[in-house]
Amino acid sequence: MELPLAVASVAYLAGYAVRVLARDHLPRLGVDLCVGVVLGSWAVFVTDYAVRLRLSGLRPLRFVRTHLMDTVVLVLPLLRPVRMVTLYDRVQRRRDQPRLSLYARVMVYSGLSVSLLGFAAALTVYHHEADAPGATIVTFGDSVWWACATLATVGYGDVAPVTPVGRVVAVGLMACGLALLGAVTGSFSSWLIQAFTREDEKPAGGHRDGEGPRGDSPGAS
Amino acid sequence: MELPLAVASVAYLAGYAVRVLARDHLPRLGVDLCVGVVLGSWAVFVTDYAVRLRLSGLRPLRFVRTHLMDTVVLVLPLLRPVRMVTLYDRVQRRRDQPRLSLYARVMVYSGLSVSLLGFAAALTVYHHEADAPGATIVTFGDSVWWACATLATVGYGDVAPVTPVGRVVAVGLMACGLALLGAVTGSFSSWLIQAFTREDEKPAGGHRDGEGPRGDSPGAS
Amino acid sequence: MELPLAVASVAYLAGYAVRVLARDHLPRLGVDLCVGVVLGSWAVFVTDYAVRLRLSGLRPLRFVRTHLMDTVVLVLPLLRPVRMVTLYDRVQRRRDQPRLSLYARVMVYSGLSVSLLGFAAALTVYHHEADAPGATIVTFGDSVWWACATLATVGYGDVAPVTPVGRVVAVGLMACGLALLGAVTGSFSSWLIQAFTREDEKPAGGHRDGEGPRGDSPGAS
Amino acid sequence: MELPLAVASVAYLAGYAVRVLARDHLPRLGVDLCVGVVLGSWAVFVTDYAVRLRLSGLRPLRFVRTHLMDTVVLVLPLLRPVRMVTLYDRVQRRRDQPRLSLYARVMVYSGLSVSLLGFAAALTVYHHEADAPGATIVTFGDSVWWACATLATVGYGDVAPVTPVGRVVAVGLMACGLALLGAVTGSFSSWLIQAFTREDEKPAGGHRDGEGPRGDSPGAS
Repeated sequence: MELPLAVASVAYLAGYAVRVLARDHLPRLGVDLCVGVVLGSWAVFVTDYAVRLRLSGLRPLRFVRTHLMDTVVLVLPLLRPVRMVTLYDRVQRRRDQPRLSLYARVMVYSGLSVSLLGFAAALTVYHHEADAPGATIVTFGDSVWWACATLATVGYGDVAPVTPVGRVVAVGLMACGLALLGAVTGSFSSWLIQAFTREDEKPAGGHRDGEGPRGDSPGAS
Repeated sequence: MELPLAVASVAYLAGYAVRVLARDHLPRLGVDLCVGVVLGSWAVFVTDYAVRLRLSGLRPLRFVRTHLMDTVVLVLPLLRPVRMVTLYDRVQRRRDQPRLSLYARVMVYSGLSVSLLGFAAALTVYHHEADAPGATIVTFGDSVWWACATLATVGYGDVAPVTPVGRVVAVGLMACGLALLGAVTGSFSSWLIQAFTREDEKPAGGHRDGEGPRGDSPGAS
Repeated sequence: MELPLAVASVAYLAGYAVRVLARDHLPRLGVDLCVGVVLGSWAVFVTDYAVRLRLSGLRPLRFVRTHLMDTVVLVLPLLRPVRMVTLYDRVQRRRDQPRLSLYARVMVYSGLSVSLLGFAAALTVYHHEADAPGATIVTFGDSVWWACATLATVGYGDVAPVTPVGRVVAVGLMACGLALLGAVTGSFSSWLIQAFTREDEKPAGGHRDGEGPRGDSPGAS
Repeated sequence: MELPLAVASVAYLAGYAVRVLARDHLPRLGVDLCVGVVLGSWAVFVTDYAVRLRLSGLRPLRFVRTHLMDTVVLVLPLLRPVRMVTLYDRVQRRRDQPRLSLYARVMVYSGLSVSLLGFAAALTVYHHEADAPGATIVTFGDSVWWACATLATVGYGDVAPVTPVGRVVAVGLMACGLALLGAVTGSFSSWLIQAFTREDEKPAGGHRDGEGPRGDSPGAS
């Protein structure tokens, strides 16, 4: 059941992206196709959720609370692409590789989630801002630039959403993105300190490469 | 004694909110009612503080120092809504549920405090900025948007307080909010790393759901 | 020797503050007095440094490296007020109080340093920006507002330095201030998590106050 | 082999810096020389990479994955100066000094990397922005100021890149710089807390210097 859901996530994001980015050049049929893909993938999620609710034998309210993440993804289409991260996890497991170290995994997982989240937010904000009066986000490039500056908490303010929908999406991006990015930088710091500690414990003078501490390379460990 | 204080907090915030948000549409009587509610709830806090000071048998100066949080809340009305968080704590305890895990509790407590703090700050800033010459915060929506961008340390600068009172409130929001938000993201990172660690220790290949690590659901633990 | 140095720090900061803030209203004599106080306190630092260098019996280069902080304070007048923090430390110790818990001490020490640093930076930036063409920082209030927004990394950008000196001071404030503030928020998070952990271990239902976790009050422990 | 690579890094950065900063005053020959130096140092990197790939006996794809850092540096010239950090490491080791403590080393290593990264990014952004229509970054000073404000996540927005290349470089600077800076501030916090802890364990009242906790001075330990 995992693969179809991931495919539905990709389809959802791709359909929405084509719909938003090519809206001026898309024929009537294309728009309908995109909307169809988006609604179809939504239907897949609803069906999966309903089947699992039935199979679990739990009361609906309790199921909602123990499967909070699934419910949120069901209601907020913007967060749906985060499910695509599971596809990466699955692909990596199938190839029978030793899994990445803990910190590397947290970084990859959070980093991918943040990227997808930022892309989805940039799409939605561009969708709602592009035609608004007084908008500073007028191209998709502006929107991506805004999403990056927001996720890094730099916030230059040269471009910023002005519509209510755009601002609500922006607040959501801040809330989710910053927590995930905190996990990325936190893991990176821990990994860096751990790498230096390990180098300290090795006998000095014996390593050849000059880039400082060595990482946990997936093939080597 | 806890419930009346929480009710007084709610009344304080609600009275102030109605006073600020509906000021143009409120009849004379409504304004008086709101001010009455605000002053009344303030009186409840003062009474509670005085009674506890008397009961503790400590010298006033020492009581102020050992009950720093209470004193701050008494003097700075803006921080009062933070007391409402205790209501949530109480409601959850009464329903005899197993309490949330440590990280989840820190996140919920800090998150609620930050939300209330941000709402109170947005109200106050809107109250003082709306009619100021050269102000960029002219609607309550602007004020909430500003509070969110400030708490996330993004700070676009498209809207920013210009009056002295507004700026003092803003500095207070930064000081309190960022420390609390640091606790939220710190706990989230720790929880994420812990969740991945726990998954590592489980035998691989046996879990069905695809969303990566499982959270500490309140009912399951 | 500690007390005279702290007094010299206070004198330095006070002299510079009066010189900058009251420059339009100060008679010729007052300006000379301020400059005299500033130079005099500087001389105290230089003397102290020279005496300690002589007494230590180390080579100058080695002394510079083992007393890096003193040397930096000697060369960069802006960082001098940070020494005033030692006065607080000394006052507290003399009164024979049990010292604050570790986290509280890190927070107080870093918080005081950050405040003094921000005040000194606001003074210097105001001193150099106020008359610059195209400056947005035109009052001391603007300068303090800018320093707060910078230390919180919010950076609205409504006011920002435009002169080279002002920008160099700003970069120094970012570098020192953010590292110290990271210590404050880091300690606060650790303290919050620790406070919740301790509450978990206590038997439930027995505590009366409703503000959640109790702090390490200096008098109680 | 380490020293030549570090020299090539310096040559690369210096050549590019002269090319960008002195472009209006450089004779035709000077420009050619700079381009020659840049290309020459690039050739050194390519050769080193090829030789190591051959000597390792690994398949190319696997080599790329286990030497990810080297590959990134090879493809993205902007990151090359980070290799210069190894020169510092080597110089310090040759002088047979006891190495810095762990936290100090993480801070020095990350701090140097961030500085070089910021300098390289400021160069590149200035190179691409200076002549763009509507650009706010018009001098190299503006560019350095922008890089500092970006790395501190303050982001005033008074100067910000407007060209696509400038914005891509900016996003790269945010991603790399913030992770490294997180390591710096994280290490600093840990070191500060550790220094306070150590002071707590010492018998009180015996230390003479007034700067609070003592650092790990390289010569003393």
